[in-house]
Amino acid sequence: MSDLVKEGIVAPTGLIAHGRGEAFDYLLGEKTVPAAHLAEKVIAAYLQEAKRPVITINGNAAGLAAKDLISLSELTHAKLEVNLFHRSEERVEKVCRFLEKAGAKEVLGRKPDAKLEGIASERALCDKEGIFSADVVLIPLEDGDRAEAMVKAGKKVLAIDLNPLSRTSEAATVTAVDEITRATPNIIKAAKELRNKPEERRKLIDSFDNRSNLKEVKRDICKLLED
Amino acid sequence: MSDLVKEGIVAPTGLIAHGRGEAFDYLLGEKTVPAAHLAEKVIAAYLQEAKRPVITINGNAAGLAAKDLISLSELTHAKLEVNLFHRSEERVEKVCRFLEKAGAKEVLGRKPDAKLEGIASERALCDKEGIFSADVVLIPLEDGDRAEAMVKAGKKVLAIDLNPLSRTSEAATVTAVDEITRATPNIIKAAKELRNKPEERRKLIDSFDNRSNLKEVKRDICKLLED
Repeated sequence: MSDLVKEGIVAPTGLIAHGRGEAFDYLLGEKTVPAAHLAEKVIAAYLQEAKRPVITINGNAAGLAAKDLISLSELTHAKLEVNLFHRSEERVEKVCRFLEKAGAKEVLGRKPDAKLEGIASERALCDKEGIFSADVVLIPLEDGDRAEAMVKAGKKVLAIDLNPLSRTSEAATVTAVDEITRATPNIIKAAKELRNKPEERRKLIDSFDNRSNLKEVKRDICKLLED
Repeated sequence: MSDLVKEGIVAPTGLIAHGRGEAFDYLLGEKTVPAAHLAEKVIAAYLQEAKRPVITINGNAAGLAAKDLISLSELTHAKLEVNLFHRSEERVEKVCRFLEKAGAKEVLGRKPDAKLEGIASERALCDKEGIFSADVVLIPLEDGDRAEAMVKAGKKVLAIDLNPLSRTSEAATVTAVDEITRATPNIIKAAKELRNKPEERRKLIDSFDNRSNLKEVKRDICKLLED
């Protein structure tokens, strides 16, 4: 990760965020807990049922899981949009190119022409053809403000976030409390299994309750803490 | 913290470690839990009962709590020794100067002339008059290898570490699971209260059990998680 800071892909404060994730992952025993596994299946189902799915990418997500996120976008016909917490034209360009080098065919985010309501100006910027008009958005490693803004805008929000207490985790429609490099391949696998099974997908979506799923994750953390 | 990276005081990977701390602090409700409060009193007692106390300082500790750690060293006649995880002559010099600018009169660590056994070469380096011959060492934000090496060398090891499961926390004689900028003033306050009270100090030391103290912290974290 430190090398990705030198390259300008990850912001220095992205390292702090990464460390926060490491701590929570440590508390999960550095594995996909059953509740996260279920959430990942539901995320796959939502992406496949979506009309206009989008996967948002920030520096950390690109640095950690570019190739898998690109595969997932191809598999589910989701657009990729670069969306940074610390936005600068230069860093957006770097992250876009990083994704393109990793095989992405189309990356949105260079020329944002719309705004999400309810958040500070720079971070509200998005693409009219991407996040702005999406019905379902996968947000790996997103901040709470933007996650809440997307929910308020009526989107189904799918989060990958290691902190089960974060505002992102609480606001999202589905939260996979899991490490991105484990979560993304799991979502890809589930998407392959759910291909051509719309009924099973609807069933997964309808029976999922994010609040009780998060509770289960917290119980797993406590078990590990008290062992 | 990001600015301290630019100054060369904090290593980029120090930001990741800082993030890990933030996550655990979040789980403590960002406050000093009762068990940590007790541990901080016991740390004060140990420092005052010591014959050759030393406080080790790395980049993160300097960046976050230089002034308080210096005050504590003066109050308890503990030496200050700079001891970095990612050691380079240049960064040692920078951290030493940073402490001197903050008011430290004597800082060890520039010319290490001894080695701790059982850890990789660079990180084993220490000062014969400092850590090497210390009977009691306060290690704020230390790594597990070095903490264990100091315990093996027969020292009483006092840790400030936000992760109650870390090897440092488990190896230490006393662990204050608390944020350094809250812990250090608490230790200073306790040291002032315990001045000229050797009996009370011995009692605190004799009745303290680090393992059960850590258990109590973990229970507090679970309470917050499950609320």
